[in-house]
Amino acid sequence: MHLFYQDQLPETNYLDLEESKHCVKVLRQQEGDEINIIDGKGTFYKAKITNANHKKCEFEILNTNKEKPSLFHRHLAIAPTKNMDKMEWLVEKATEFGIDEISFFQSFHSERKVIKIDRLEKKVISAMKQSLKAKKPILNEIISYHKLLENIKAKNKLIAYVDFDNKVHMKNELNTQQDALILIGPEGDFTPEEVDLAISKGFKKVSLGNSRLRTETAALAAVHLMNLAME
Amino acid sequence: MHLFYQDQLPETNYLDLEESKHCVKVLRQQEGDEINIIDGKGTFYKAKITNANHKKCEFEILNTNKEKPSLFHRHLAIAPTKNMDKMEWLVEKATEFGIDEISFFQSFHSERKVIKIDRLEKKVISAMKQSLKAKKPILNEIISYHKLLENIKAKNKLIAYVDFDNKVHMKNELNTQQDALILIGPEGDFTPEEVDLAISKGFKKVSLGNSRLRTETAALAAVHLMNLAME
Repeated sequence: MHLFYQDQLPETNYLDLEESKHCVKVLRQQEGDEINIIDGKGTFYKAKITNANHKKCEFEILNTNKEKPSLFHRHLAIAPTKNMDKMEWLVEKATEFGIDEISFFQSFHSERKVIKIDRLEKKVISAMKQSLKAKKPILNEIISYHKLLENIKAKNKLIAYVDFDNKVHMKNELNTQQDALILIGPEGDFTPEEVDLAISKGFKKVSLGNSRLRTETAALAAVHLMNLAME
Repeated sequence: MHLFYQDQLPETNYLDLEESKHCVKVLRQQEGDEINIIDGKGTFYKAKITNANHKKCEFEILNTNKEKPSLFHRHLAIAPTKNMDKMEWLVEKATEFGIDEISFFQSFHSERKVIKIDRLEKKVISAMKQSLKAKKPILNEIISYHKLLENIKAKNKLIAYVDFDNKVHMKNELNTQQDALILIGPEGDFTPEEVDLAISKGFKKVSLGNSRLRTETAALAAVHLMNLAME
């Protein structure tokens, strides 16, 4: 059955313009047809179309189903790559695997200072539909690395950075009892001062393995590991 | 230092046309400059340019360094997606993580019957340079699913397919003592008959987790797991 997105549920009883058009014009759904809707807050709705208007498709909710919540808050913070396509790819894939929050920061070696959150939100919603997820990951506007570190809520604070004398794999530093945040640096990596600052804030250095990974690949590996910790 | 590819090493003492052009014209390397070269067979070479010709850049080998071999043969076999970009993305990311062999097969629900291996080879070589790997993964031409199953060498044979009564995560089925092959089906998944055929050939059904992943994402998750098994 077709899946739509309406973040104003359960208050509203219609799909927004774009979703209405897709439902009625593209997929040719009619009055009486049943559709599924996700609210981005963790609930699946089964609904019946009561007015197949292609600008405002109205429905009646038949039943609801809560998504199983994740065992801990999975938070990724990354210095975005120059190439925005890679960030779109990342948020799509991270949503597929499962992620609760993505933050972007600007550090010393950052290649990008601006992020278009709107574009990324669209990718996220499309990936949610594809992978049947009802809860939308939070995407935060880009801030400075220093600002990011000032306001950390996670108990399990990790920074992807490998020293020769300190090589702990991230997979051994995750547990389902603690909300986790992993910091992924830019292509030029964190500066030693940035790493020291994180350490002073209670972060632990972790490795993502022996391969030299690009920023977006490292980020996806970290997201995958957070999900593996729950399996 | 810059890294180049020459699969005819150690027999030849020059870079091919494209690499010569990149070395001499783009990167402006000169006689006496030192460069690194990978042979795709697992060896890094340090060399000194003896003739900075942009069509045939000659060098003298200074020393060699063998890449640490992987603990087991990591083989991915996948039904390629309709969108070729996704396969290019996959071979690039799989190379970054580390993979020894990638096969493509055509099964009942396959969306694509043709694969341009040449294009994928270029992606692989570029990813090898980026991630500092000296051994090139083997890419095999697409064959039928039945043909693929006729000639399996791996001891550890896995198929990504989830039954309600049999949910074993792939991460629990890998060990460094056994060469592994994981089969990833097309968007429409394997048919029950295709799964039965694999079972009859000694394959074990494994899950990649609770999320519904696209074909290329599932494949990358499997590649990541094979590498995690070695950490």
